[in-house]
Amino acid sequence: MLINGKPGLTLAGNDRGFHYGDGVFETIRVIRSKPVLWDYHDRRLTQACGRLRIPLDRNLLAEEMHGFLEESPAEGVLKIIVSRGPGGRGYKPPVTPEVTRVLQFHSLPEQNPLKRQKGIAVIFCRQTLGSNKTLAGIKHLNRLDQVLASMELVEGIDEGLMLSEQGMVVEATRSNLFAALEGSLITPDLSLAGVNGIMREYLMDCFQANGETVKVQSLRPQELCKASEIFLCNSVFGVWPVTKLLGQNRVHEFSLGLFCTKALYFQDQVF
Amino acid sequence: MLINGKPGLTLAGNDRGFHYGDGVFETIRVIRSKPVLWDYHDRRLTQACGRLRIPLDRNLLAEEMHGFLEESPAEGVLKIIVSRGPGGRGYKPPVTPEVTRVLQFHSLPEQNPLKRQKGIAVIFCRQTLGSNKTLAGIKHLNRLDQVLASMELVEGIDEGLMLSEQGMVVEATRSNLFAALEGSLITPDLSLAGVNGIMREYLMDCFQANGETVKVQSLRPQELCKASEIFLCNSVFGVWPVTKLLGQNRVHEFSLGLFCTKALYFQDQVF
Repeated sequence: MLINGKPGLTLAGNDRGFHYGDGVFETIRVIRSKPVLWDYHDRRLTQACGRLRIPLDRNLLAEEMHGFLEESPAEGVLKIIVSRGPGGRGYKPPVTPEVTRVLQFHSLPEQNPLKRQKGIAVIFCRQTLGSNKTLAGIKHLNRLDQVLASMELVEGIDEGLMLSEQGMVVEATRSNLFAALEGSLITPDLSLAGVNGIMREYLMDCFQANGETVKVQSLRPQELCKASEIFLCNSVFGVWPVTKLLGQNRVHEFSLGLFCTKALYFQDQVF
Repeated sequence: MLINGKPGLTLAGNDRGFHYGDGVFETIRVIRSKPVLWDYHDRRLTQACGRLRIPLDRNLLAEEMHGFLEESPAEGVLKIIVSRGPGGRGYKPPVTPEVTRVLQFHSLPEQNPLKRQKGIAVIFCRQTLGSNKTLAGIKHLNRLDQVLASMELVEGIDEGLMLSEQGMVVEATRSNLFAALEGSLITPDLSLAGVNGIMREYLMDCFQANGETVKVQSLRPQELCKASEIFLCNSVFGVWPVTKLLGQNRVHEFSLGLFCTKALYFQDQVF
């Protein structure tokens, strides 16, 4: 772990990341010592820090990251956390925050090739996503919704779909969702809740560059159950076809379709 | 600072409080080395840990707190933070978490007696409170809404009122709200957003024990502007009358009324 450029294992007890979740993070796949889709991650991180008005020195962070990756295993997962740093008691931030930069390297979670070939089973989580216009989209450190939802995942269920307070499908606990409905590729709107995932953004760019329209819109659970294909994506596992959806009082089955096959192809370009 | 019963200044870099805001806290006024309204704080802390399924050892925490207060100044503010403790990468918590208990002592913020006598000026914040049924009421560590709202407070403005995503008045950035409307005492409903403040709960109990009904209901900004009195409360400053509300394109003025005078009297019973 690298904390503000120095190897370390501990954080200041008064860090605002700990007290208020006052910060943002990125989780990045590392392949051959390179951070996959770094440009996308860098852009989202910058945008998120801007939204929260955290004065991150991007160049310093990038420099620390490159040094850190040289000394880490060639394959794995890099987690970057940026918090507003130490602060006294009280919500109001210091006028000139001393930003905390944390870099952590994790081994890649076990990759089961069957998930790619046969797809995964998902549920609808009971835990909903709070709606919050200012925070929607960015990957901030206020993640209790995801923590509580992930506790609903049991053996054999790889992901859980999360609904907004308004009852719309938004994303899964740690991944974004795409669905094919009446021949169109759809991904839920994230303007009120959800994380603007990097793999989602990359896939949208690929589909669009390939002449395919991706509709960003609201999606009801009942509509999703009628989809011809569903797949999930994130920066670590890439793309997972969904072949079973347990919900609405029955099991819905889906097959691996053309959109998902293309998404897997796009994933393979960077993984 | 006492961390898990030992004096210390640092936290494990993999604490889930830092990574996800996965925890809860209490801010308690200390007078003559006693934690004011401890029974109320203890009850809310226990309820919050229950809601998040954090297995806190209450007796151990209470024991640590009493020892810590003996060695701290007699007057000030005690902050208790309880997080789900260290965890690997990923939202899903460990099956048996090693809960982190942090105790911090802060000096009392400067008390300006004029605020009690002449009241304070408040604004309506642009930052709204996200709505989230599961998290509403408890004092968890996901506090970005309050952090962002508190950045709107400028010199001369002591607090900012926060609206829900639905446009209702819920609370202020670090305090709860009461208002008198057509002779009735009202405090906003907190079932979708807001913190169930200890001073609010204590005052409600006092008013009710005194034969006074407190209505818990939704409150629109326009209604609030027509109130005959408004006051805010929290565990540290107690009760602040609001005499100026900047909003809805003009300044609304309020005088210190009978309900607020009673609230100040109830506050004085414990402060």
